[in-house]
Amino acid sequence: MPVSSRPLILVSNDDSIYAPGIRHLVELLRELDAEIVVVAPADPQSGKGHAITIGHPLRLDASDRFGPGVVAYACTGTPADCVKIAKHYVLLGRRPDLVVSGINHGSNSSVNVLYSGTMSAAIEAAIEGLPAVGFSLCDYGEGADFSHVGPWVLQVCRLALGQGLPAYTALNVNIPKKSATPIQGLRLARQARAKWDEKFEQRLDPYRRPYYWLLGDFVNHDRGQDTDEAALADNYVSVVPCRFDLTNYEGLGELAQAWQLPLPPASPAAAPPQPVASEAYGPAAEQ
Amino acid sequence: MPVSSRPLILVSNDDSIYAPGIRHLVELLRELDAEIVVVAPADPQSGKGHAITIGHPLRLDASDRFGPGVVAYACTGTPADCVKIAKHYVLLGRRPDLVVSGINHGSNSSVNVLYSGTMSAAIEAAIEGLPAVGFSLCDYGEGADFSHVGPWVLQVCRLALGQGLPAYTALNVNIPKKSATPIQGLRLARQARAKWDEKFEQRLDPYRRPYYWLLGDFVNHDRGQDTDEAALADNYVSVVPCRFDLTNYEGLGELAQAWQLPLPPASPAAAPPQPVASEAYGPAAEQ
Repeated sequence: MPVSSRPLILVSNDDSIYAPGIRHLVELLRELDAEIVVVAPADPQSGKGHAITIGHPLRLDASDRFGPGVVAYACTGTPADCVKIAKHYVLLGRRPDLVVSGINHGSNSSVNVLYSGTMSAAIEAAIEGLPAVGFSLCDYGEGADFSHVGPWVLQVCRLALGQGLPAYTALNVNIPKKSATPIQGLRLARQARAKWDEKFEQRLDPYRRPYYWLLGDFVNHDRGQDTDEAALADNYVSVVPCRFDLTNYEGLGELAQAWQLPLPPASPAAAPPQPVASEAYGPAAEQ
Repeated sequence: MPVSSRPLILVSNDDSIYAPGIRHLVELLRELDAEIVVVAPADPQSGKGHAITIGHPLRLDASDRFGPGVVAYACTGTPADCVKIAKHYVLLGRRPDLVVSGINHGSNSSVNVLYSGTMSAAIEAAIEGLPAVGFSLCDYGEGADFSHVGPWVLQVCRLALGQGLPAYTALNVNIPKKSATPIQGLRLARQARAKWDEKFEQRLDPYRRPYYWLLGDFVNHDRGQDTDEAALADNYVSVVPCRFDLTNYEGLGELAQAWQLPLPPASPAAAPPQPVASEAYGPAAEQ
């Protein structure tokens, strides 16, 4: 079989394969004349961060949820598991031209990127050297309105496919909730220094034993105008390029001085892994 | 009650409050004449990344596992949940002088920092502006030998308490497995660009339905001598300062050029939150 000229796009999310957000995303991607493969969680995985499943196995079940022309699987694991099993098992090492995750029901701006299953799927792809984007809609409502997101999702995907992304980078794209004000465009931004001020509400169960609900207020401590929070407040789609190298490089120098430790001379990281070209799917696709 | 001059150290981990690693850590910390509070998972949380518990509540049960003088709780959530409930509920907002997590049973070097529950506890503390360290022993064995780790754990804790850490930074400290070669010292390092080459092993259940076990080989693509992997290979304790701002700042400039988008002028992030001084514990401590 000849290698297709259509781009191969892998799709995942964290709200599960049954969420409206991933259905909207796949419908939009159809406009790109791409080969679309979905591997998404069988169950909601919000707040799962970059969790992976160790100690018990995964199930992978074919799904016809997206209709003809879209190969799709529900996986019982986390979003990061979905990308791993998609790449290594479903796609047999074929390298997608783009990995997209979402559209998440709710914001993943600022520090929420760490807790986000949506972004962990994108970051897992970036670890593999694949261009990746996580999309989130800043609307937690059950009947969230996705009708305004199309042009922005498509613009980002076309730019990512056409112009590429910085190496080993996943974009964290957040789209303002639909309102009377039109969206102003895409804005590049850094992750705001914001956090949750948590509270725990204690309740007593019928046996009078206490249990605790996590509650919290999201607080943006960051007055910078170059942050994702500022972009969203101005009704822009925020675009934050995210890396998975957590090293605080400035901190290395500070620590060397404060702790009187030698600092090894810096040397560059390795080259990206090489792509594999083929058109096969893995054994799971033959079930 | 006067404010104590003893440092307050919060301890967590991901292998559960019943793991040998956290017992070793608490025994070592006793040498620091510190007030020690443990809030650790009730169940093993390896590979849970930065997951938090949404949609169901947490339990918190007092534990006498560490003997007199150590206030300890088992929490049914993730490591990040443990730090949240410790800070906001058990300590009522008192700010620990140091948060330590571990000692993990197994390495959390290089990209493993993303999957690690141990490091998510430390990073959750860093989000709160608290100095934090995650310790891991590069020994996955059930009977892992912790007998050589004491001087290194204490050196790092004393330096962190005495000299401090860069702001909003959690140290990822990995200690080589015990061997005939003595450990050479602490070495500052960056996160190596390494990853898992996953494989999935398909098996059939008794009903002849397939399931999949995640397997993989850890591969270091990074030839740099300044990485955590290189430090460990040379029998040093690797010390990587980790941040939770995932922004790829160089990537912002690359994207602005390639995608022809304006780059907002950079502005600094906000100042750290202010400490709270008190000696009370939360209602959970009164159970």
